[in-house]
Amino acid sequence: MQLFWTPASPFTRKVSIAARELGLWDRIEIRPTTWTLDWGYRTPAFTPGLAEANPVARIPTLVTDEGIPLGDSTLICLHLDEVARPKSLIPADHTARWRMWSIYAVADGILEAQIAMRAEMLRPVDVRSESFLAKQRERIVRCLDALEADVGHLAGDVDLAQITAGVALGYQDWREWLFDFRPGRPRIAEWYAEFSRRPAMRETEPRETPTA
Amino acid sequence: MQLFWTPASPFTRKVSIAARELGLWDRIEIRPTTWTLDWGYRTPAFTPGLAEANPVARIPTLVTDEGIPLGDSTLICLHLDEVARPKSLIPADHTARWRMWSIYAVADGILEAQIAMRAEMLRPVDVRSESFLAKQRERIVRCLDALEADVGHLAGDVDLAQITAGVALGYQDWREWLFDFRPGRPRIAEWYAEFSRRPAMRETEPRETPTA
Repeated sequence: MQLFWTPASPFTRKVSIAARELGLWDRIEIRPTTWTLDWGYRTPAFTPGLAEANPVARIPTLVTDEGIPLGDSTLICLHLDEVARPKSLIPADHTARWRMWSIYAVADGILEAQIAMRAEMLRPVDVRSESFLAKQRERIVRCLDALEADVGHLAGDVDLAQITAGVALGYQDWREWLFDFRPGRPRIAEWYAEFSRRPAMRETEPRETPTA
Repeated sequence: MQLFWTPASPFTRKVSIAARELGLWDRIEIRPTTWTLDWGYRTPAFTPGLAEANPVARIPTLVTDEGIPLGDSTLICLHLDEVARPKSLIPADHTARWRMWSIYAVADGILEAQIAMRAEMLRPVDVRSESFLAKQRERIVRCLDALEADVGHLAGDVDLAQITAGVALGYQDWREWLFDFRPGRPRIAEWYAEFSRRPAMRETEPRETPTA
């Protein structure tokens, strides 16, 4: 398998952690990508091979062993999980599985808001919208509060909801323009302190993407 | 099941078509939502119940029979497919299944670009970015060209890739600020002329969302 990758993308970090937790990381060839800082508001020059594999031209993109490109991080997680069976990051029980996906979608909503803010902040100042940034910040607050209330479901064997929540909280810590999620949320603060010690979390700590 | 819904959202149309094709539509209670036109750049007043069910506060949101909210259209499709078994919109064969998901992700990338353009065009003119609109338009062109090249995979029993491609092409037709996808793409033009005759497509033709 091949993975178009950068160290800054939270969606890419999510699949990189999933691959590690599933024991598949060594079977994946990493294709590093570079992004000019205008990617948020202009079509950048794509790393060769990326747009040819996935016309959405986005990371993460996984190319499967059969040569099939998958340009969506949720689908990539599902594919890796199928390849790794009987290992799995998805609960077998019906209710537990959909409870996991419910929380996964909330955590993924944080990632989307974080990336929307990042793209907005890369815009020239004259077309930057403060109310758009506030909207995304308010979405993150609602989702963090929901994770705090639901932290009991972030327990047990590692799953895709835990991984996505860990990535969302890690990104919140990494970007200096995002706020500290801990005040008022002691339960996810404690949960994250423990979860972030996992080797797959430590090996994937975010770094700036090379711009050339 | 309950579905937070509007007639304008292509992601909601996708799950509405999937539910119809799976024979589940009658088991879903529709919860219509309203959106003020500033939704793209400001936190709007949410329809009561929406943000409480899904803190991302977005449509479609499905609440399952077990009371579990799912706030992501791909996960909603997966859930409906599981509920409807043995009916399914997902091929059983491994390679056919991932080929379907590959095309699904390309078509879904068109929906994301369309909605990103819609949100941008709702912004006040002074913070609207023409290059952002161009970026999304160029993404749609790449994805449409890929669908044209891959149209042979949009054949056979109806599946989630066909549904998503149908919704993407239908939205392209509906919004007057989007371009006609047909010139230079005779194969998807012909495919869509046929696919759009399906009852599930005709029963879900897009209409403006009520603003209050």
